[in-house]
Order: sequence, then C-alpha cells, then structure tokens
Amino acid sequence: MSGPIEFHFDFSSPYSYIAAEVIDGLAEKYGRKVKWRPMLLGVVFQKTGQPLLVNVPLKGEYSLRDFARSARYHGVPFTFPAKFPLSTVSAARAYYWLHGQDCAKAREFARAVFRAYWVDGRDVSDLAVLQDIAAASGADGAALAAGIAAPEIKERLKVETDAALAKGMCGAPYFVVDGEPFWGADRLPQIEKWLQTGGF
Amino acid sequence: MSGPIEFHFDFSSPYSYIAAEVIDGLAEKYGRKVKWRPMLLGVVFQKTGQPLLVNVPLKGEYSLRDFARSARYHGVPFTFPAKFPLSTVSAARAYYWLHGQDCAKAREFARAVFRAYWVDGRDVSDLAVLQDIAAASGADGAALAAGIAAPEIKERLKVETDAALAKGMCGAPYFVVDGEPFWGADRLPQIEKWLQTGGF
Repeated sequence: MSGPIEFHFDFSSPYSYIAAEVIDGLAEKYGRKVKWRPMLLGVVFQKTGQPLLVNVPLKGEYSLRDFARSARYHGVPFTFPAKFPLSTVSAARAYYWLHGQDCAKAREFARAVFRAYWVDGRDVSDLAVLQDIAAASGADGAALAAGIAAPEIKERLKVETDAALAKGMCGAPYFVVDGEPFWGADRLPQIEKWLQTGGF
Repeated sequence: MSGPIEFHFDFSSPYSYIAAEVIDGLAEKYGRKVKWRPMLLGVVFQKTGQPLLVNVPLKGEYSLRDFARSARYHGVPFTFPAKFPLSTVSAARAYYWLHGQDCAKAREFARAVFRAYWVDGRDVSDLAVLQDIAAASGADGAALAAGIAAPEIKERLKVETDAALAKGMCGAPYFVVDGEPFWGADRLPQIEKWLQTGGF
C-alpha cells in the first residue's frame, strides 16, 4: 500500500510538536504523503479517564525532562511554555478554514502554530496571535476570525476529532499507516520500519 | 562517565521483558555493564494513582497491539499470557537470593523468568515454576523456597523497590544512565545516543 500517513494531533501536545517536525521528511523518504489532522485531545482524556501527564505524580516530573530531551534527540528547538495547557480550538479551526482554501498554506500555518507555542511560548489560544501567524501565510485576519466562527468549520473539527477517536486514538500524536495505528513520537522508528518493509 | 546502567523492572511488565532482551547487548557495545534490579511495580501504581495500562479505555486495546508489534520490531518472541497480571514478589525475591550467591546465575534466572512468562505463558507467580526455572541454573528447589522466605531477602526487595522510587521510577522499565532517567523500552534509542555521545 502507499496511501497517505494519517497524523492526528493536538497543538497543545509537546510530543505532537516533535513529531510534526519529523514526520513529513520521514514520509517523503518513502514516497508517502501525510494528512495533518488537528483534533481536540481533551475528548481522548474524557474517554480514557486519564489526567494530563504533567499532573501525574512521578510521571509529571519525568515528562518535563523527557519532553526537552526528546526534542534534543530529534534536533528540534523546544522551550516548555509558561501557559500550559491552553485551548487549541481556535487554532484547529483556523487550520481547517485555511485547509479549505489551500492545503499547503494550512500545513505552513500548522507548523508555525507549533513553533510559536513550543519554541517562542506565544499564547496560541489568542485569536490575535493566530491572525498574526496566519498573516505570514497571506491570510486576512478578519476573514480568519469569520472563518473559524462558521458552522461548517466548527462541524469539521468535531468530525475530525470523532474520526480520530473512531480509529482508536488514545493519546497524541497518533498515526495511522496502512490501517496500522501508532501512538507517540517514540513510535517513529516503528513507522519507519513499517514504511521500509511494508509491515512487520 | 562509565558506570553501570541501572535497569529497574518488574517481571510482569511486557516492555520490561522486551528491554531485558536488548539492554545487555546495547550496554556491551559501549563498554558498559548493566545492574538488573527487579522491583514491585504495584508500588509505582500506588504513587502515580494510575491503573494498569491494559485496563484503560482506548489505551488498553492499543497497548495489546503495541506490545506484540514492539516485540516484533526488536525481533523478540512474544505471546501475551493467559494469566495477567500476576504476583512477581516470589520471582523478584528469588532473583535477589540467587544474586547473593552468583550474579551471573541470577541474570540467567531473570532472563529465563521473563521468557517463561512472556513467551511460554507459564505462571511465574507459582513457586514450583520458579524452582523449575532456577534448577536450570543449578539452584536447589528447597534452598530457593527457604531463601525467598528469609527476612533479609524480603528486606532486600523492599529496599530495591524504594530505591527505584527514590530515583523517580514512574513506570517500567526504568533506566538510569550516568544519573539520567529513561522510562520505557521506547527510550532505548535515546539511551544509545547518550552512550555514544556522553549525554545530549
């Protein structure tokens, strides 16, 4: 098979950010495309009944160390933001609004949102920040504000979140390759072996 | 630095089994030794307040798939056992009893316990099974039964479990390399980079 890799993520997930910096290059190496699909991870937390990782005793302290080390491992800049977690509803809706116009610009916007939050510590729950980021992709701020308020864009985010859950998404990032699910940036080596071998 | 790699694990952890099959070879490649330190993971669950992974909605189903695929990824035989979870108190005590006599035999026993459980599905909570496994390392069954009931062996397991927790152990396997903690078989590539570069 040679369909696209499905990449389900939430902009507020540090491992999603790390994976976002790596997945397109990995896919390209094996002639694959990637479908970027932001969703709302809070819905997964509701289903699993799990708290935020950073709030779990022992795991919280470890995870802060692991986020930064995993970023260094992949050669990706990283600074844990002062505001965490934050709402990613507007960022995800803005992605789908842009995606309806131009897939490449939407991807560029998604990368920029991740970096604004996970490198520069900007508050990407703030509409003005999102408008500023989108402006770099040539998007009009007023049109973006109207776009993310449109019923069809709100519906699109719900549909994508439900679709990810229906595929078994239990954490972020969550990849589906030829129907096989992979959870976590730490499964990138397994994804690579899958792409190399056609499944193992 | 070139001290030993500390390897904290519970015999009932599938990712610990996978890591156990890999870590000695990895360490040897970089001229390092490994300290194998079984402990009781239930104590970590008490601290973190986290349920058993296989019982978490969405994550449970995914994890069963991931255990088997991760084993295939590493080229390690794996069959999810009919009896899971089970008590590993006796197995861990037997390890420390053997370790007091002969480190190499204790390591051989630990590997055999992992394989008995994760490949052959044997009930390694059963003293008779442990005696049978230890016999292959030349240990006397009656002496083992007496050994694991000795106060100093019970105390040793408590001390090792507390020591792992004091190092921040939040899940299994948990490695400490030059003071740096790594949680999970999926952190083996980061451990390798650490050993290669002396830290990153």
